[in-house]
Amino acid sequence: MERPKNGAHVLHGQSFVSVTQLDTDGIASLFAIADKMKAMVKRDGSCDLLKGRILANIFYEPSTRTMCSFAAAMLRLGGQVIPVNESSSSAQKGETLSDTIRCLECYADVLVLRHPIKGSAAEAAAAASKPVINAGDGTGEHPTQALLDLYTMQSELGRLEGLTITCLGDLKNGRTVHSLVQLCARYGMRVHLVSPASLRLPADVLRAAAKGANGWSLYEEHQSLDGPLRQSDVLYVTRVQKERFASADEYDAVKDAFIVSAETMQQAPANMIVLHPLPRVNEIAVEVDDDPRAVYFRQMENGMYVRMALLAALLDGDVFARLG
Amino acid sequence: MERPKNGAHVLHGQSFVSVTQLDTDGIASLFAIADKMKAMVKRDGSCDLLKGRILANIFYEPSTRTMCSFAAAMLRLGGQVIPVNESSSSAQKGETLSDTIRCLECYADVLVLRHPIKGSAAEAAAAASKPVINAGDGTGEHPTQALLDLYTMQSELGRLEGLTITCLGDLKNGRTVHSLVQLCARYGMRVHLVSPASLRLPADVLRAAAKGANGWSLYEEHQSLDGPLRQSDVLYVTRVQKERFASADEYDAVKDAFIVSAETMQQAPANMIVLHPLPRVNEIAVEVDDDPRAVYFRQMENGMYVRMALLAALLDGDVFARLG
Amino acid sequence: MERPKNGAHVLHGQSFVSVTQLDTDGIASLFAIADKMKAMVKRDGSCDLLKGRILANIFYEPSTRTMCSFAAAMLRLGGQVIPVNESSSSAQKGETLSDTIRCLECYADVLVLRHPIKGSAAEAAAAASKPVINAGDGTGEHPTQALLDLYTMQSELGRLEGLTITCLGDLKNGRTVHSLVQLCARYGMRVHLVSPASLRLPADVLRAAAKGANGWSLYEEHQSLDGPLRQSDVLYVTRVQKERFASADEYDAVKDAFIVSAETMQQAPANMIVLHPLPRVNEIAVEVDDDPRAVYFRQMENGMYVRMALLAALLDGDVFARLG
Repeated sequence: MERPKNGAHVLHGQSFVSVTQLDTDGIASLFAIADKMKAMVKRDGSCDLLKGRILANIFYEPSTRTMCSFAAAMLRLGGQVIPVNESSSSAQKGETLSDTIRCLECYADVLVLRHPIKGSAAEAAAAASKPVINAGDGTGEHPTQALLDLYTMQSELGRLEGLTITCLGDLKNGRTVHSLVQLCARYGMRVHLVSPASLRLPADVLRAAAKGANGWSLYEEHQSLDGPLRQSDVLYVTRVQKERFASADEYDAVKDAFIVSAETMQQAPANMIVLHPLPRVNEIAVEVDDDPRAVYFRQMENGMYVRMALLAALLDGDVFARLG
Repeated sequence: MERPKNGAHVLHGQSFVSVTQLDTDGIASLFAIADKMKAMVKRDGSCDLLKGRILANIFYEPSTRTMCSFAAAMLRLGGQVIPVNESSSSAQKGETLSDTIRCLECYADVLVLRHPIKGSAAEAAAAASKPVINAGDGTGEHPTQALLDLYTMQSELGRLEGLTITCLGDLKNGRTVHSLVQLCARYGMRVHLVSPASLRLPADVLRAAAKGANGWSLYEEHQSLDGPLRQSDVLYVTRVQKERFASADEYDAVKDAFIVSAETMQQAPANMIVLHPLPRVNEIAVEVDDDPRAVYFRQMENGMYVRMALLAALLDGDVFARLG
Repeated sequence: MERPKNGAHVLHGQSFVSVTQLDTDGIASLFAIADKMKAMVKRDGSCDLLKGRILANIFYEPSTRTMCSFAAAMLRLGGQVIPVNESSSSAQKGETLSDTIRCLECYADVLVLRHPIKGSAAEAAAAASKPVINAGDGTGEHPTQALLDLYTMQSELGRLEGLTITCLGDLKNGRTVHSLVQLCARYGMRVHLVSPASLRLPADVLRAAAKGANGWSLYEEHQSLDGPLRQSDVLYVTRVQKERFASADEYDAVKDAFIVSAETMQQAPANMIVLHPLPRVNEIAVEVDDDPRAVYFRQMENGMYVRMALLAALLDGDVFARLG
């Protein structure tokens, strides 16, 4: 993928529904924009790149941090934000998603959509004439989360190719991990999967990842972090929820194997980083927060830079030239 | 009504509670501003006309699109917006509407009010020293909706005088139609009313319209669009809700007569336009959306331009000079 | 406390959790900024002092006017606001307050926190690396309310030292009065306390006030405003809620003694001012609103100027130089 001659990103004018829309060049150029955004925010706080543009932040289910992250991203680019909490309004009057989108796009230049039903982002993108960004569609994708996870690895470790990542926790229900595993495959990462037997990564996610893989291999580990921990560049932690288990006994039997403590960190490599999509409950002990390898709050901050990059890429046809 | 010498609209500094505050000259000059707003948004996205001004968007009941339309209007004028969802706060503590308004006007330069009780906009306007805009007060008025309906007719058809409009659906409970019929009368439009027998336009709305009428005539049609359809310049569709009928049988017997389909459109004039206040459920088939005569989504967009014009008229004492 | 040489307020870069962080010099310089803010708003509406900065308005319980006041303050300084209603989101997923704060500060430059639990503002300030402003923490403090009350007295009466203030109503549960009484003590005010016997000011609040007192004296009056009214420069009214009493009879027996009417005002000094933290229900009769001594709506407006001053003090290291 060549950078378009006119200075636009490949996503310019498009909706962004799935990470499959980006190849590694598209991701690399997006991350290059994100780096510039980060430097700009540290230096100036905000800029005027998207002055006069409006983002509609449409959430059919609450997600404080994703909503805030997109809002902050747009505001720091000089744009404006209209929050739309749809749970209590037109949807109750029986309006279709397509109609709601066609109405809201009358007011905005870009639409961010969080919706509980898989496929709704694609449906919205098809209805809209303005760019739609998928901010999570149920068991579907949450592509900006996957990108910010990847961006954090690159920022912290300086590369993506050939890394070894260990995913820990509930790998069955974690949409975040599903998208991430598929991205990691493209970079030839080694992926270790550590989960309770009943919460393993679904077979179809594995198959999809394998299809796009660049010479990678999977190690599935049951109920023990011990082996993969020592080989990991990245430990990606997700929550193991009690209510996913058939019985409280079953949960109690395994839960301690999925908690990252100071003791866990003692056995981990000195350069390994710990990621978590947040919110966490108790799967990472608070004592770990002060460990320099705990980067999950920086990961959260990176989300803003990646979303700034995405908004600039979608809306500004000359983004590369403008950012210098 | 002459345009005031100093370049201000007749509504400058006023509250806007009812369409009765505007005569046809006042409407024409407002629509002239709206035309300029539309051109500006298409060209630049936004401007700085109301930079530094704040709109309080006070909603005592949810209405996503009206709230978003006012927010977008203010933002595209360079102003700022504070959303106020009052359902869950001070009203529960027993505060009067007047007190709430007197508090919120301390922070804002203009107040938009949506309230379930008829007369509340006038009450708020009386309490406030800043302009209040009625964004719907129960069974009272929703004057900006009526204006945007009228503006859409003018934009699409080039004129208002002498048009023939057919209002279809529940004409008893539709506040939108009540305001619109009264405005249409002033322009000497012919108005056809097509509704189930139990959902006819109330007699007092007819009487009020007749009082301001400019040589018009009314045709009331029961349960059939067939006659008026072929004579219409405008088909204004509203929803017929099952729960308005005494029995499900009664609803089933009439409902199909109030659905606009591709077949309906085949019998309609080539230049007729279809309006709908939205949201629609099934009263206009989705297949109609692609018909060039279906303008209800542009109607939605026009709402933003009309509200921009209104905000500029209320807040900028030199709006005509500034817009060139 | 000398004004720092570099033009910064003593609170610059700090969190603001309690009025105890400010001595009388710190308050005086904050009020000097507030005076300039008031003049600027009257003249220009807003300025660009905090252009590019973002405030996260985090409310764990609804409080329309406090939320709006902070939002308007930030917007009038040229900054932007992200509203965060936390009741329905991450808190329900079991996240700690510290984690929520560490996430939200990734997006914002300053955090305003309203939380039902005493001590939560201090907890948030400890977790954050950005300034946190306490917008009310349960039975703890609501320090900006106390400051705006004090600022209103100074604005209206020209001084604070040596005033006589009478606090009327429920002095047991009113957080507002607790903070205010402690501030008044520092200025050597005489404080009269008029409340039902069961709703007296708690002893620990009195003790804390006495510790910081500058030669003041307390007069505790039961069930009668008659004596102190005639000596008062300030009458500070709070609500007496029926549900605070053991029985309806008990409430009915005393309630009329805590209502301020036109008759009350006839017996009050000509220069006395009436304050109320609002919302009021019936403890001040509407007929009093037109009395020039009724300043509670101006008090509300002053809240915006004081919060503007605080935001400028926290975020701008050269605020005094910039404001001229």
